[in-house]
Amino acid sequence: MQSVGIIGLGLLGGSLGMALKGTFHRIGWGRREDNRSAALELDAVDEVCSTPVELLTKSQITVLAIPVQATIDFMKEYADSFPKGAVVTDVGSLKGEICRAAEEILTPKGIRFVGSHPMAGTEKHGVGAAFAELYNNADIFILNGGGADPEAVEMVSQLWSAAGGHPKYLDDANDHDALVARTSHVLHIVASALTSGILDAASAEEQSKRFAGCATGFRDSCRIAASTPAMWREITEKNAAAVLKAMDEFEERYFTLRRLIENGEFDKFQEEFAHGKELRDQWMAYKNNRS
Amino acid sequence: MQSVGIIGLGLLGGSLGMALKGTFHRIGWGRREDNRSAALELDAVDEVCSTPVELLTKSQITVLAIPVQATIDFMKEYADSFPKGAVVTDVGSLKGEICRAAEEILTPKGIRFVGSHPMAGTEKHGVGAAFAELYNNADIFILNGGGADPEAVEMVSQLWSAAGGHPKYLDDANDHDALVARTSHVLHIVASALTSGILDAASAEEQSKRFAGCATGFRDSCRIAASTPAMWREITEKNAAAVLKAMDEFEERYFTLRRLIENGEFDKFQEEFAHGKELRDQWMAYKNNRS
Repeated sequence: MQSVGIIGLGLLGGSLGMALKGTFHRIGWGRREDNRSAALELDAVDEVCSTPVELLTKSQITVLAIPVQATIDFMKEYADSFPKGAVVTDVGSLKGEICRAAEEILTPKGIRFVGSHPMAGTEKHGVGAAFAELYNNADIFILNGGGADPEAVEMVSQLWSAAGGHPKYLDDANDHDALVARTSHVLHIVASALTSGILDAASAEEQSKRFAGCATGFRDSCRIAASTPAMWREITEKNAAAVLKAMDEFEERYFTLRRLIENGEFDKFQEEFAHGKELRDQWMAYKNNRS
Repeated sequence: MQSVGIIGLGLLGGSLGMALKGTFHRIGWGRREDNRSAALELDAVDEVCSTPVELLTKSQITVLAIPVQATIDFMKEYADSFPKGAVVTDVGSLKGEICRAAEEILTPKGIRFVGSHPMAGTEKHGVGAAFAELYNNADIFILNGGGADPEAVEMVSQLWSAAGGHPKYLDDANDHDALVARTSHVLHIVASALTSGILDAASAEEQSKRFAGCATGFRDSCRIAASTPAMWREITEKNAAAVLKAMDEFEERYFTLRRLIENGEFDKFQEEFAHGKELRDQWMAYKNNRS
């Protein structure tokens, strides 16, 4: 049985450990001792190490399941602790900066890095929120372009397949970042703006009405507004140019609908809405085919 | 056991029937014969009538569970078929136009109308999508202002409580329409714009990446983009002024976030995001206290 080392025992790392139970020997490390104990107790890992160095020497494949900047900092700090030929991947929401850092820091030392981005998550965080099914039928972006080692790409793909995911290859890290700005980052900004606009009322009486007026539509549309602010600040800051471009595209559609309402062109409004529904229904069919 | 007549056997009417099983004798009417049979088969009602007139004469309380304009048209067409003193309510997403129509058409004939708007629904439609738990712990707006008859308000409240909902009284129908423009209507327009912007790709290859790039965030944020276009056209058209005002409020928050990104003010961006999260967490606590 191969050994997988998981650096970071939060929602993503913990869930990966749970998903790999029985197919990999799972070794974990997290900064806080209580978090390592919790991960063991929740059976997210088979063993924990008290230092990253110990984990790196024991693992055939290592997954960095920590925030973007922390991933880069980890590479810098532990570049000399990876065994030569080690296979390393990550779960970062952004791939440009991470893949560039890996190429600069790890590649010269013969460490084989392959960037991953599992399209899975919830608005919660921490190993307490982890669950074995998180990656089930999720698309997993794997960066196989540039100098990615084919054997390492294969090992990383097998790891994600074992966790229930579907590898989806992308060859350009910057394209990836532009893509997820559209499919994910802009959604968080919109959800946050909607939530504040809807719930921030001038009086307690008005707020009580607003709270009651929010039903399942609000529940789902604005779920991700409850995501970790520090994490979404980091992602938005590091990917600002792509996020602003994705916002431009959203605004174009949004103001098209707004103008149709202003002009009373409701036949066209209905057509636009129907077009969105058709695309959404196609996406649901795609996702249902996955499962 | 009181008799409730349900006009319209779709998602809302069908689910109401299912929820009232055992506490009311449930009589249903829908335009299509096959739909009436389906409602009987799914045990959404105890009996069906082949004409609205038959239903109205048999029911102590009648619920109009049809679209907004259809509700108004129904009042006009069947004003003379309600028994004197009948209690009538509805489920319409807009209350201004419906309550005004009821006051003009029904009140002079001694029919006691009380407007309702259950804050419950899904993106699906039809009795096949109905389920008994739809109204569980949902807030139900009940319009008790103006000339609403107190006994009728009480009967309507009891009906919704029996279905699992929590009556929430509003006295002004126009205020109601402004409120739901914010808490619901604008969400549908934003979800539609997001969906089209994200999934409408120039090539099949690009679309395949976009489909893969959409995960659970997109699934939830844009669920309501799959709602019935004709229904959302009607609601948006009839409530256009309030919807545009709600869009103004959303845009104010949205462009605040956008400017912070453009100016690189990410500490403030994080504060704004944290504020949205705090409000969202408060709303979740409110909803969880309901159940």
